[in-house]
Order: sequence, then structure tokens, then C-alpha cells
Amino acid sequence: MTHPLPNSLTIALDAMGGDAAPAIVIDGAAQVLGQQPDLRFLLFGDAPRLEPLLAGHPDLRERSTVHHTPDSVAGDAKPSVALRQGRNTSMRLAINAVKDGAAAAAVSAGNTGALMAMAKVVLKTLPGVDRPAMASVMPAQQRPVVILDLGANMECGAEHLFQFAVMGEVYARVMLGVAKPRVGLLNVGTEDLKGDDVVRGAAAMLRDSLLPIDFHGFVEGTDVTAGVDDVVVTDGFTGNVALKIAEGTAAMFTAALREAIRGGGWRSKLGYLMAKPAFAILRSKFDPRRYNGAMFLGLNGVVVKSHGGTDALGFAAAIAVAADLVRKGTNERIIEEMGAIRPVPQAPAHATAS
Amino acid sequence: MTHPLPNSLTIALDAMGGDAAPAIVIDGAAQVLGQQPDLRFLLFGDAPRLEPLLAGHPDLRERSTVHHTPDSVAGDAKPSVALRQGRNTSMRLAINAVKDGAAAAAVSAGNTGALMAMAKVVLKTLPGVDRPAMASVMPAQQRPVVILDLGANMECGAEHLFQFAVMGEVYARVMLGVAKPRVGLLNVGTEDLKGDDVVRGAAAMLRDSLLPIDFHGFVEGTDVTAGVDDVVVTDGFTGNVALKIAEGTAAMFTAALREAIRGGGWRSKLGYLMAKPAFAILRSKFDPRRYNGAMFLGLNGVVVKSHGGTDALGFAAAIAVAADLVRKGTNERIIEEMGAIRPVPQAPAHATAS
Repeated sequence: MTHPLPNSLTIALDAMGGDAAPAIVIDGAAQVLGQQPDLRFLLFGDAPRLEPLLAGHPDLRERSTVHHTPDSVAGDAKPSVALRQGRNTSMRLAINAVKDGAAAAAVSAGNTGALMAMAKVVLKTLPGVDRPAMASVMPAQQRPVVILDLGANMECGAEHLFQFAVMGEVYARVMLGVAKPRVGLLNVGTEDLKGDDVVRGAAAMLRDSLLPIDFHGFVEGTDVTAGVDDVVVTDGFTGNVALKIAEGTAAMFTAALREAIRGGGWRSKLGYLMAKPAFAILRSKFDPRRYNGAMFLGLNGVVVKSHGGTDALGFAAAIAVAADLVRKGTNERIIEEMGAIRPVPQAPAHATAS
Repeated sequence: MTHPLPNSLTIALDAMGGDAAPAIVIDGAAQVLGQQPDLRFLLFGDAPRLEPLLAGHPDLRERSTVHHTPDSVAGDAKPSVALRQGRNTSMRLAINAVKDGAAAAAVSAGNTGALMAMAKVVLKTLPGVDRPAMASVMPAQQRPVVILDLGANMECGAEHLFQFAVMGEVYARVMLGVAKPRVGLLNVGTEDLKGDDVVRGAAAMLRDSLLPIDFHGFVEGTDVTAGVDDVVVTDGFTGNVALKIAEGTAAMFTAALREAIRGGGWRSKLGYLMAKPAFAILRSKFDPRRYNGAMFLGLNGVVVKSHGGTDALGFAAAIAVAADLVRKGTNERIIEEMGAIRPVPQAPAHATAS
């Protein structure tokens, strides 16, 4: 039961990660199984809590194997402590399943830092990659945008941003099907002298590299949401803030729309009712749950991080991202292309690729 | 003519700064004068270009003194070069007017870095302030939020964020009229161990200081737009990206709303027409032009930076911010309170105020 059947895709789930786990994990898996009936799941977590939830989803129960463990990683645990003491946690066992080949990918809504630390130790980073980065797709005006890093690396050097750009470009080609993705570096302005040494150094490395990347230079926050580029590269601090500000602004706008209608008298209310299907499309378009699921790029294996505060719909989206990544062979492409460009430029700032 | 009349408020304008200068500057000044007829203006710029524009606004012409200079700071000029070679530019002369007491404040939509460098050299930073920060008000769900730094300082230490917090708190008290502003530090999560040494160090300094500041700890991007705090403190790189992502997301949402209505058939279109006044309120609420105008906090004088790409309505808002700052004595309060808390904690990370 623990080995994937031929022609099926097995995903390991950390059933105990996330604010509303394990319910969102089980319900999310059931949702995605309804759309992708060939999936199989390895569920790692507290069996006495999982079994009653599974009882409500007979199809899922049949396609799942429960691996009991009483241990889980606390949301506020220090990554180093989780790494040392968490060898038997649901998170660690889910990652181990990817390493062992029992699962094609792991999904967790748990502690980001711990997930990153465990994934690095268990799966190892790819040659040419110093640090894995979290990448996800976000909605933008002209086209969806791949943005990375979303919070795995607080402080980055120029060479890290360079590596993120290379991996993000492959990700956009494979996952979004864009033949020649445009890559931009997030900065406070588009002029060459803007920003700090890190972004200017990364720009120099990308411009001087001989890689066939369509590097577009610096982009500003407004360019990200406009969808000027297919890939936007930044450090994990800025990327995390950017994504959450975008989500928050969309939520604020939706709330303000409702309030404006409510305060607008009967004409507004009637108008709203008539235009309701259009509003539903709008809300759905910016629903952060639909974009949930960030991949750790740069590892020997697929690990997807779900937002910790998401619900079943959001967790289902993260599982769907993991399945899509595996089916499209995204990581194989990244491994192949990162291998082909070695040696990557290593000098910190004004390096030129030779 | 160059000296302010008693009971009037004189503002120096860099008439040549901004993408669409000098037209937006003249039209913006005329707009704000319509609402605040006691204002006077010192206009620095190319007189042969300014006079024809002023001819269209006789009221403004009468309340303005034009100081001709052919020099202006290029949008892509390096701050250090602008500082050395720009002694006779419209930007520099506008700042000089504040220093000399000829104007109570200066407003420019020009090169941010050059404006900052000139303002620092001419006006000098306050005792206890290492670096001035750009602060502005942005819309949020529960209340408007003061956010700083918005792009003056790319790399900050813990002590800089600490100083920004102290100044931002005074700014919120005076400008928003909040008795006890809640202050948050922008981070990738709310837990104490999140982020890098800089934000954790600044949090320690704020917690350990004996200042009567309602410090609320770390906030995430979604908390900013929710309006959890009155003041959000961050470095200039992150703050600039955050503000522009928020503006961009609002613009994207407005565009998507229009598109959803257009694609929704006659019912949606009719509904939209009926609810149109409500939509107009909504659009106005998030119109970045209404929030235009960021003050440089920490200087011996009031300098307001307008967005370079704004129009007359936006430039008028920036002038109104400058006038409001002067009338409320904001900078006098900041000078007073920064003076009272000296010596400020200077140790980088785990300092305690004594």
C-alpha cells in the first residue's frame, strides 16, 4: 500500500500542518481527488484524529495510506529545533517519503522555516544552488506572474537573486507554458542606479551572463501587478511582504466594494444584485486560495508549502500545484538546466560570467 | 514679494520636477489655491515656460512669485552629482527657500534621491536622527495608516527603524489626530523569531525603550492593509515596494471590475450603471493621487516629495499635505520630542534604553 501504483501519482501530505489541520488537509485532499481521481495520498499524522475525518470521504479513504505519528512541528518552533527534535514529525516523514521515492511530492501547511530546513537536509539542494527559494504564481493584469522568493531567505546576496532568476525562468516556461519568459528584478525604480548593491549586482550578473534569459532589468511594485514580466525576482523578505500586501489590498477592495454598495441606497443594491455574477468572477479572480501553493525551487524533490491559514479549498489548490509540478516534470527541467549552466558566476557584485 | 505676508502660508515649489512638469505643478497649485486661498507660492523654474502657464490662472499668478532658473535636476541624475552640480537648480532653490525662512515648506515631484541629498545638506538632520525617512498615509480597512520609510533608505540598521518608529508615532498623533497610535514593525510573520537581525533588533529597542509608545510588535503585509496599526515601520526598499504593490493591486482590481462588468451582459451593465455612484466612491477611496505627498521626517524643515508620475490633482494633494504639516506644527512636535528622548539607544541589536 505504501508504494505508488503505476500510472498513478502519489503525494505525501503533512496532515498536521496548518492552523486548521488536520481537517483542511483531509477535506482539501478529498476536493482535489474529485477532480483528479488518479491521485494517491500518503497521510502523515495522528491516526486517531485522521480516521474519523477520512470516514466522511470513502473515495479518499480508499486512495490513501495513513502513517501514524503522534509528533508534529509547532507553528512557532525554531527551524533548528524542529530539525533536531522533529525526526518523527508528520512534516519530516512526508519529506522523507519524497526522498525514498514513495511519493512524488510533499505538501505541508506547517511552519515555513522548519519545512525549508527539513527539505534542505533531507532532499539536498541542487548543484549550483546555494539556497532554495519559494516560488508561486500571483494574479496580475496582463498575465499571471511567477514571484520568488516568498519568504525562505530573509537576506540575499546578488548571486542568490541570480540563481532565483534562473530557476524562476524555467519554472515559468514549464508551469505557465511561456516560451520566452520575461524576467524582472524587483526594485524601488527602473533606473540602473536605483536600489542597493544586491539588486544592482544581481542585475549585472544577469546582463553579463551568457544564459538565454530575457532579462528586462528592474521593475517596480506597480509593474508586478500590471504583469509587465512573467517572472519577478526578489529576496524573501520583500517577496513575502509584496505578496501579502497584494492579497490584503484585494481583500480591502472587496470589502470596500460591499460597503460602497450597502451605503449607496436601493439603486446601488439593485444594481449590485443585477451585476452579481460579474462580481463573483471578480472575487474568484483575486481569491488568494486559488493561488495557494508555493514550490521550494532548488531541491532534489518537490515540496510545496501551503499558506498556514488556508482552508480546504486553498489546501486543495496547493495539492493541485504539487500534482501539476510532477506531471510537467518541472523539477527535472530545473535540475537539467541548473546542471547545464555550471559553473555559475560566484562573485558577489560585479561578476561577469565567463 | 519674496517674503510671506503675515497670516499667510508660503510654499516653495520645484516647478520643474516630475514627468509632466511644469504643467502639473502650475495646475496643481491653482487647484489647491481654489480650496486654500490664503496660500502663497514661490515658484522656482524656467520663467519663459512658467509664465504662459500662469497666464491661465490669474488668481495663482497674483499669489505667486516666480524665481527664474534655467537649471533643473534630471530624473535619472545621481544624487551625489545633483548635489555637487545642482546649486542653481529649481529643486535646490526651493529647499534653500525653506532654510532661509522665505517659505514654510518645499514640494517637489523630482528625483527622490537628489531631493533627499539636498534636503539633508541644506536643512540638516535633527539631533538623534541618523537618516531622514519618507512617510506618507495610505488607505487601509480599519483606518488610514502612516507608513515609513517609503524609499529614502535602502539599507537600514535596527537603530534607524527605531528612530523611524519614534518619528512616525509623532506624525500619526499630529497628522491623523490619534491620541495613542499603535506602532507595528513590518515583517514576514508576527512571531518573535521571524525576520532578520535588523527587525528583531528594532523590536527589542522599541520594547526595551522607556518611551510611551504603544508598540505592537511585528505585523505582516495583510495587517498593513487591514489597518491593524496606525503606524507601520519598515526599511525604504520594502516600504517602497509595499506602497507600489498596494497601488498596483487597487488599479488592477478597478480594471478587472470594469472588465467583469463589460463581459457580463446587459444585466451586469445595467446593474453597473445603477450602482455607478457607489463605484465612484470606491475608486476615489483608493485613488493614489489622493494620498500623494510624502514628508521627509527628521529634518530641520518641511520637504514633501510628490510622486514623479502624478498629475495636477496629485500634485495639489502633495501641496495640501505640506500646508497641513505646517499648520499643525508637525515638524516642531517631532523636533521637540526627538530632542526630549536623547540620548536614544545606539546599540545595534539587544540594546536597552537607560
